Amino acid sequence: MSPVVTFWLEFASTYTYPAVMRAEAEAAKRGVALIWRPLLLGPIFKNQGMNTSPFNLFPGRGRYMIRDMERICGALEIAFKLPDPFPQNSLLAARCATALAVEDRPAFVREAFTMAFGEGAQISEPDVMREALKRVVQDADAVIARAQSDEVKGALRAATEEAEKAGVFGAPTFVCADGEVFWGNDRLEAALDWAKDHAPKERLGAI
Amino acid sequence: MSPVVTFWLEFASTYTYPAVMRAEAEAAKRGVALIWRPLLLGPIFKNQGMNTSPFNLFPGRGRYMIRDMERICGALEIAFKLPDPFPQNSLLAARCATALAVEDRPAFVREAFTMAFGEGAQISEPDVMREALKRVVQDADAVIARAQSDEVKGALRAATEEAEKAGVFGAPTFVCADGEVFWGNDRLEAALDWAKDHAPKERLGAI
Repeated sequence: MSPVVTFWLEFASTYTYPAVMRAEAEAAKRGVALIWRPLLLGPIFKNQGMNTSPFNLFPGRGRYMIRDMERICGALEIAFKLPDPFPQNSLLAARCATALAVEDRPAFVREAFTMAFGEGAQISEPDVMREALKRVVQDADAVIARAQSDEVKGALRAATEEAEKAGVFGAPTFVCADGEVFWGNDRLEAALDWAKDHAPKERLGAI
Repeated sequence: MSPVVTFWLEFASTYTYPAVMRAEAEAAKRGVALIWRPLLLGPIFKNQGMNTSPFNLFPGRGRYMIRDMERICGALEIAFKLPDPFPQNSLLAARCATALAVEDRPAFVREAFTMAFGEGAQISEPDVMREALKRVVQDADAVIARAQSDEVKGALRAATEEAEKAGVFGAPTFVCADGEVFWGNDRLEAALDWAKDHAPKERLGAI
């Protein structure tokens, strides 16, 4: 069995964007399986006493983040445009990702993040989400409908609570099977290496 | 002339510790000169509306930082012990570093950080600073006396204001000659690479 890392992502988070674009290739290099899981940082920030992004609460950090993102995306040769407003309302995007089959999530997430941070599109708009879904699945409208169901709403709330209990306080966050937590796009490699180096040993000689 | 990077450091900052221990070797690899400059984050945090370290204001981040530091210091094979209280009062250490000749600063800074974060020593204590200074210069007592002078106090205040104007909001921060800012131990290599790649070109053919 491959080592596994849970990739907690928030559609309004700038640094999640390069992580989303890099994650699959870096995981494949190491033979690590990624489980892509959307969450909502809003309730987690609220529990920390913050009513918006730290990049808005601390403008110096916000200005730095924009320049840092320009450098990171430049090196990856992907476009970067800060959405306006920032942060965007990511509720619909997170519910759509939750409503999707697990195997369809990575492609949808990349489409949605490219729209949000490559083009500055409004991911809170159903038409934008429908367009992203159409690029990945046949039944975009069915996914949007399922995204509004009580089941999906509850699953996203439960996922956010689960993430917070696991030690998530920002995004992206990578959680290894043994509970080790790595925060930030710049910790992706460290998380994958950790998972690879600390994978449960195969049982030998079991007949 | 070598490319130059200003290394803004705060003696109470956890992530400054691994940066201090790594900086000289990484800079030498790239032929970049480092200018080590102490500052006080207290006034900078205050201007952001924070009355203590963000690691205390946001306990989830604080717990993560401790684990992250354990991993980083483990990989570097240096000891890590979070000082109590955290953050320490770093005023005397910053004044001592300011009072030192520029060429004596790196060695003193490494001694002081090793005491603070490797051993959990109280760097606000004059006896602890005297011990760190003794390992680096002949006249430790003279440095401690000079550290209390109006000239040094004013120079440290001015340095902190200069750093804030340059875009510093945390530590460690690396500022290149062209004004490019890199924040965090994990951006040391990027800052040095930037300085190397964006150094003013030598004039060719000047006789």
